[in-house]
Amino acid sequence: MRLRIADELLGADSLDSLTAVQLRLLVDELLSDYAACLDNGEIDRWPDFFTDDCTYKVIARDNHERGRPLATILCESRGYLLDRVRAVQETSYYLPRQLRHVVSGLRITGHDGDEIRAEANYAVFRTMPDEETRVFNVGNYMDSIVLDGTRLKFKTKICIYDSILIPNSLVYPI
Amino acid sequence: MRLRIADELLGADSLDSLTAVQLRLLVDELLSDYAACLDNGEIDRWPDFFTDDCTYKVIARDNHERGRPLATILCESRGYLLDRVRAVQETSYYLPRQLRHVVSGLRITGHDGDEIRAEANYAVFRTMPDEETRVFNVGNYMDSIVLDGTRLKFKTKICIYDSILIPNSLVYPI
Amino acid sequence: MRLRIADELLGADSLDSLTAVQLRLLVDELLSDYAACLDNGEIDRWPDFFTDDCTYKVIARDNHERGRPLATILCESRGYLLDRVRAVQETSYYLPRQLRHVVSGLRITGHDGDEIRAEANYAVFRTMPDEETRVFNVGNYMDSIVLDGTRLKFKTKICIYDSILIPNSLVYPI
Repeated sequence: MRLRIADELLGADSLDSLTAVQLRLLVDELLSDYAACLDNGEIDRWPDFFTDDCTYKVIARDNHERGRPLATILCESRGYLLDRVRAVQETSYYLPRQLRHVVSGLRITGHDGDEIRAEANYAVFRTMPDEETRVFNVGNYMDSIVLDGTRLKFKTKICIYDSILIPNSLVYPI
Repeated sequence: MRLRIADELLGADSLDSLTAVQLRLLVDELLSDYAACLDNGEIDRWPDFFTDDCTYKVIARDNHERGRPLATILCESRGYLLDRVRAVQETSYYLPRQLRHVVSGLRITGHDGDEIRAEANYAVFRTMPDEETRVFNVGNYMDSIVLDGTRLKFKTKICIYDSILIPNSLVYPI
Repeated sequence: MRLRIADELLGADSLDSLTAVQLRLLVDELLSDYAACLDNGEIDRWPDFFTDDCTYKVIARDNHERGRPLATILCESRGYLLDRVRAVQETSYYLPRQLRHVVSGLRITGHDGDEIRAEANYAVFRTMPDEETRVFNVGNYMDSIVLDGTRLKFKTKICIYDSILIPNSLVYPI
């Protein structure tokens, strides 16, 4: 029994033959797997969701909309992601925290053969030791997704967050 | 390549032949498009989601459950929606704000040929300039949806919110 | 017109022949119905979502991950659930409250013939009379789901919440 929608639908070499319904279900599964990876604290698996030449960016909405380059996190290849993983794992003053992603409103906004563009809203909750759970970071994803072998991966993932006030430690990816 | 599930599934003149799976996916897409319209600040496109003879209502749960008519927002046709758009756009003391909808738990609760009834939970987060993102308005949608030409539109959309304490400016639609 | 995906897809005696797409849609519908039951205050219907020999547990993440047995709520059969329903309904000092579940990130993590294992993130918001809506309890579900007659039911439902600080009255199920 095949459990993953990707295993069921992604047999061919291209995304061309997929229907709108199939694309929607595939990207939904990818976003769910991505969120679970981060929420389960498996940050060493996080770079596997990206292509080698990926761009990963976390940026305030204001900067994004005005075309300002200033981003809170900017990784311009998978190597950068690996560096960030190491940074998170080795930062000693970094208190343990629990993130929890709630993602909804997925929309497939573009598709040209090899590349899917998708957007979704996210709300990330954070729980620090001995504190109540709080709203941590809210915004939307703007993703470009490609088929890498038999797996969907992010070629671009931009996390555009709504509040310029973020807690002083946006170390962990969104 | 057709990107929208609606373009893929809504060929016929009626909703009669759709399966439960197809209805679920179509309404999910409609709700996602609706949320994106509001969250992207494209309020001038908001009335396009409604039929000409629509009812749009934002009401406290307590009033809704006791059958009290008092609603925070009540628009009884598409013309009312256009008035509200103008009010939002022309209100000078209205500070810019960023809304973010997270919608889940969609259920198709009724379907009689031309009309789909659907419910879903929503949480709207709001970010004011230089403030942290906060929980703004939480509740559930009770929608009646019809086919208007080749597009699904809301004939009725009731937003029933859980807290009678709402920030003093529920100007923007939910 | 069949409205429920379960009525459409669950004809056979076993779950064996279902595709990954169908499983995903069926469990999503089950979780939506479950949340609506609790959010609508229909707690007397809550035990119907479980098998007779079910386990229902609400536990802090820290205890769950360290294998500690201490749970905030532990019901080891449907009879326990009925007891809890009665407790909730008869507790006189229990102020009325409105819960609202937002669930996302559903993943089918296992499937062996008769049993589906699924996980999803949840955020529950709570509104007390004359108070603002607040984040109440955030975490993830770990469920085992079986076919009971023609209906999917929880054989096991574990709600693992992120913060050990919970409001002093986790009386109502999550």
